[in-house]
Amino acid sequence: MNDPVALELRTTLDGPWAAVRGDFREQIEPSMLLGTPGESMQAQRERVTDQVLQIASIGHGRVGFPQAYGGTYDYGASCALFEMQGYGDLSLLVKLGVQFGLFGGAVSRLGTQRHHEEYLRGIMDAQIMGSFAMTEIGHGSNVQRLETTITYDPATDELVVNSPTPSSVKTYIGNAAKDARMAVVFGQLLTPEGEFGVHAVLMEVRDAEGNVLPGITIEDNGVKGGLPGVDNGTFAFADVRIPRSALLNKFADIDDEGRYQSDIANENARFFTMLGTLVRGRVCVGGGAASAAKKGLAIALRYGARRRQFEAPGAEQEIVVLDYLAHQRKLFPRLAKSYALSFAQNAITETLQELHGTPLPDGETHPKEAIRELETRAAGLKAVSTWHAVDTLQACREACGGAGFIAENQLTQARADVDVFATFEGDNTVLLQLVAKGLLTEYKEMFGDLAMAELAGLVTKQVAEGLVERTTGRAGLQRLRDLAKGRDHESAMDDTGWLLSMFEQRADHALETVGKRLRKAGKDNGFELFNSAQDHVLFAARTHIDRCILEAALEAHDDMADGEAKELMRKVLALYALSSIEEDKAWFLEHGRLNSVRSRQVTASINDLCRELRPRVHTLVDGMGIPESLITAPIATGEHTTTFA
Amino acid sequence: MNDPVALELRTTLDGPWAAVRGDFREQIEPSMLLGTPGESMQAQRERVTDQVLQIASIGHGRVGFPQAYGGTYDYGASCALFEMQGYGDLSLLVKLGVQFGLFGGAVSRLGTQRHHEEYLRGIMDAQIMGSFAMTEIGHGSNVQRLETTITYDPATDELVVNSPTPSSVKTYIGNAAKDARMAVVFGQLLTPEGEFGVHAVLMEVRDAEGNVLPGITIEDNGVKGGLPGVDNGTFAFADVRIPRSALLNKFADIDDEGRYQSDIANENARFFTMLGTLVRGRVCVGGGAASAAKKGLAIALRYGARRRQFEAPGAEQEIVVLDYLAHQRKLFPRLAKSYALSFAQNAITETLQELHGTPLPDGETHPKEAIRELETRAAGLKAVSTWHAVDTLQACREACGGAGFIAENQLTQARADVDVFATFEGDNTVLLQLVAKGLLTEYKEMFGDLAMAELAGLVTKQVAEGLVERTTGRAGLQRLRDLAKGRDHESAMDDTGWLLSMFEQRADHALETVGKRLRKAGKDNGFELFNSAQDHVLFAARTHIDRCILEAALEAHDDMADGEAKELMRKVLALYALSSIEEDKAWFLEHGRLNSVRSRQVTASINDLCRELRPRVHTLVDGMGIPESLITAPIATGEHTTTFA
Repeated sequence: MNDPVALELRTTLDGPWAAVRGDFREQIEPSMLLGTPGESMQAQRERVTDQVLQIASIGHGRVGFPQAYGGTYDYGASCALFEMQGYGDLSLLVKLGVQFGLFGGAVSRLGTQRHHEEYLRGIMDAQIMGSFAMTEIGHGSNVQRLETTITYDPATDELVVNSPTPSSVKTYIGNAAKDARMAVVFGQLLTPEGEFGVHAVLMEVRDAEGNVLPGITIEDNGVKGGLPGVDNGTFAFADVRIPRSALLNKFADIDDEGRYQSDIANENARFFTMLGTLVRGRVCVGGGAASAAKKGLAIALRYGARRRQFEAPGAEQEIVVLDYLAHQRKLFPRLAKSYALSFAQNAITETLQELHGTPLPDGETHPKEAIRELETRAAGLKAVSTWHAVDTLQACREACGGAGFIAENQLTQARADVDVFATFEGDNTVLLQLVAKGLLTEYKEMFGDLAMAELAGLVTKQVAEGLVERTTGRAGLQRLRDLAKGRDHESAMDDTGWLLSMFEQRADHALETVGKRLRKAGKDNGFELFNSAQDHVLFAARTHIDRCILEAALEAHDDMADGEAKELMRKVLALYALSSIEEDKAWFLEHGRLNSVRSRQVTASINDLCRELRPRVHTLVDGMGIPESLITAPIATGEHTTTFA
Repeated sequence: MNDPVALELRTTLDGPWAAVRGDFREQIEPSMLLGTPGESMQAQRERVTDQVLQIASIGHGRVGFPQAYGGTYDYGASCALFEMQGYGDLSLLVKLGVQFGLFGGAVSRLGTQRHHEEYLRGIMDAQIMGSFAMTEIGHGSNVQRLETTITYDPATDELVVNSPTPSSVKTYIGNAAKDARMAVVFGQLLTPEGEFGVHAVLMEVRDAEGNVLPGITIEDNGVKGGLPGVDNGTFAFADVRIPRSALLNKFADIDDEGRYQSDIANENARFFTMLGTLVRGRVCVGGGAASAAKKGLAIALRYGARRRQFEAPGAEQEIVVLDYLAHQRKLFPRLAKSYALSFAQNAITETLQELHGTPLPDGETHPKEAIRELETRAAGLKAVSTWHAVDTLQACREACGGAGFIAENQLTQARADVDVFATFEGDNTVLLQLVAKGLLTEYKEMFGDLAMAELAGLVTKQVAEGLVERTTGRAGLQRLRDLAKGRDHESAMDDTGWLLSMFEQRADHALETVGKRLRKAGKDNGFELFNSAQDHVLFAARTHIDRCILEAALEAHDDMADGEAKELMRKVLALYALSSIEEDKAWFLEHGRLNSVRSRQVTASINDLCRELRPRVHTLVDGMGIPESLITAPIATGEHTTTFA
């Protein structure tokens, strides 16, 4: 890349794992990551399996696994790598995620030495392919209610895995229909002592020749709306016996006397601790979806910068479509959001590395609050990033017209694939509720003992200082925040301090008021009260995540060296922030945070920023750092058969 | 159907072409309209071709063609039929539309007796399959700049069709890759006398054995993002000679002496007159997309009314997901909009029948204003309906979670197919600009001669009375309007008079202010001024269409007999209107049409209406009148393997 500004943008976006991303750009061949439109489902599945093996062969499966077994134990790098893989075929991305993230991650994180010794090497090299069998027909979101049973039989010292009802059948399980030799299977653990809630076992499902083992029924989920290269399927178990040692026993075990043992006494706490160790999956899914959105934007913006349609009165040549305000407004705010999300993704990857990827001295644990905050943020960022990807790829398709609908232009398959990212690894709406729950727990812990009467005044103070301080507190942001104080109605529209203050006011007020509403809930009317406030709850969650995104982006911006790239980035982030404010304009007006003059200025400023960014579009596209060899769309490379007269 | 309320809703939605819809429900077999997930592209194309022939064999191709050749000349019925066909496979719908609507319609409407005599029977029976070859690689929206040339050669009395540049190649043409024996080809007409702009010829492209004729190159567009059963392809012409009589000569001809003749002297006017006769395509596309959305809603609502997930505290059984407010808000406002759009679709179908389907005494023509108003409304309704379908099918997919992603549940293919409905028959953004242009032309005609100084006061009056009066003026609506006057801030949120008044104020003010902005445009700064107001222009167009939709819906509601169905319909339409107001809440606040208290009440009222409609969901689904045999999704029919514990 010859454009120094683009290079600086890329370096900034690359963040702490710049080396991993740089290596990826150099190592990768398009044939390792792309498919060909028109392959049959069967051919796609075979191609993707081959590509998984190829990627494993260059060591990409080892990133994030314990060093004792040949891994690199670099948790953050595994996320950064997943983001880069998101620029390729998303069927392949999901297969990689199932093998090395979900399946491998569960064995690594829920299992102990006995499982690691025997299986991790084979898993990292993709010689042992596996499934992560959690979802059942009856339960996808509420996995505490899984119906599969794992019953300990003291007579034989075995575990018996069973699917007792039609709705207990595992479904939508990646790797199940074709490739899985093993599976991590979740179910209710029962022993003669009682029921202990959901646990996981590691079991074989096919033999070395690929024959399904006795007692197990596997069916193919068949044609899906996307991800044709992923062999999703179902597992049903008819009293399948496996050794007691198959229990993934990091957090709970059955001892030699057949007694259940766990350091975590509370069943609920135990289950969420287990799930919490798998948080990387959510971090990765959001990052991978965001990459697909970036690639879509690169294609649509490059095409839009060459395609011409309709002449201005009196002009001979037609106008470049990206010169139309409507076209800019379709693509530039989404580009700006992609930039902002990159920084939030880098920030959460760093936190994950800190809390999950850094060994602590024996006996020490990370603070509970930090763990919860990570899980909350991962849930919310996953929801926002995947919805952003669905929405952006759709906008890109439309912006490219008929050409956008032709598969070789790389928009439609990605759009179809990314759809289900809004559902797997947690339904986005359910995840936003999880965010709200996390925030409200914190809120309750802070205010739980105070009478309602005292609350009102305190909330404002605490929310404005306490919570905000906790989530950020960096000197740069504090400076911006101070500058913004007291001049809400005067500051320039693109003043980052003012923008940050608007995001904070929105999130704080939303949380504060939803907290007040829910405090009234008693035992009898709990659900009704919660349900009538559900839109408010989701708003509080989403605006909290929006704030996390802007904070992460402004911190990264603050760290840039002064110059052209920093100034360009400032405009990009202002566009992101103003677009978010515009979407919630009604809220800001209703709550007196914008008057009607300022409110109209928000829209006018967005239009101004679009105009200002228009000449920098190629720099901004290059700055995203997408491996150029993976952008093969003829409309983006210029091979589209048209003179673009 | 045993539910009398559902039956009454259905009858109301069926509207003037209830008989056509009723016959369709009785005649149709699922095998005639559905495909099977997982068919190869080749198999889908063959299946769809067979289904086109089958549908032609029961006479459905004859609807809308002149009676002299065996047609029924019922233009409105052809639109209603297309809506019903939209409940089947959308690849088939598009093939039917290409054959009987675009290709057949062009021959019928742009050709004269010599073309009708020779071809119409074969077209109606699908024995002569054909293409509508307008779009080129370089020009999809700005079709006045097509580059294909049709040159008259007086030496041989022939026309020579040529593709002079790479970007002049016809592309995305339905029926081209496999089935078309003929094509209506658009290009610039040149004679020794000069250039006459875009005209169309009817020419053979393949012989009876299916061999491509000399001088013509046909390529397959290959894999697309949807519509796999449609054989889209390209046409390139190398000086292909066809007889002079091939010119579709309804509006212009070359006479025996080789002289160009047309009653419409202005080239621009001539071109838009030709295009205008093809307005039915836009009406149909919007209706077909709306049907796909309705079917998606039926599936998601039936599943949501049975699927359970998460128990309320203290409860044993999990909650039905449709009882969650968030789930209701995802689906009910879209259901309400589908109801409202049905009435707008019925209204435009009636207008089309009146202006295009009713022969006038010789020499008489329909008023220019009425024709323009129809074209404006068709363009806008197509944009709003197709975007609604894309958005709704996506929401339905997400609402059904992983099950929604499985192809047999009938959401994903429809979602993928309907995507391009936002592009073909006119890109939606371009169409909304067309709406704005129509409105502004009217505006200019009304105010063109007045000095700016006089304008301000007058505009309010005229816009409020003049324009509104013109577009509706029915007694029922006028009564509502009068009732609403002067009590904007007091009336109940679901008061239809108040809702109508809000829609009118929004549309009128948007148009008035955009008119003022654009009046300042001179020759030099015309494009810049227009471009900087483009978002405003699009807003004016969209809000005008929103008003048309609500007016049509309230008129139909007004005609219902008092009773339970009417009251239910009133709530549905109030939900539609309030949801639309909520989307533009910021505008209403900025312009003092809502204060912040009322603004919050809008949201609260939507939530209330969702709760009120919840127990009526099955009635509302049945009321849409979708042929039950076409809803095969296991999650909707109850065959989904789950106990829904």
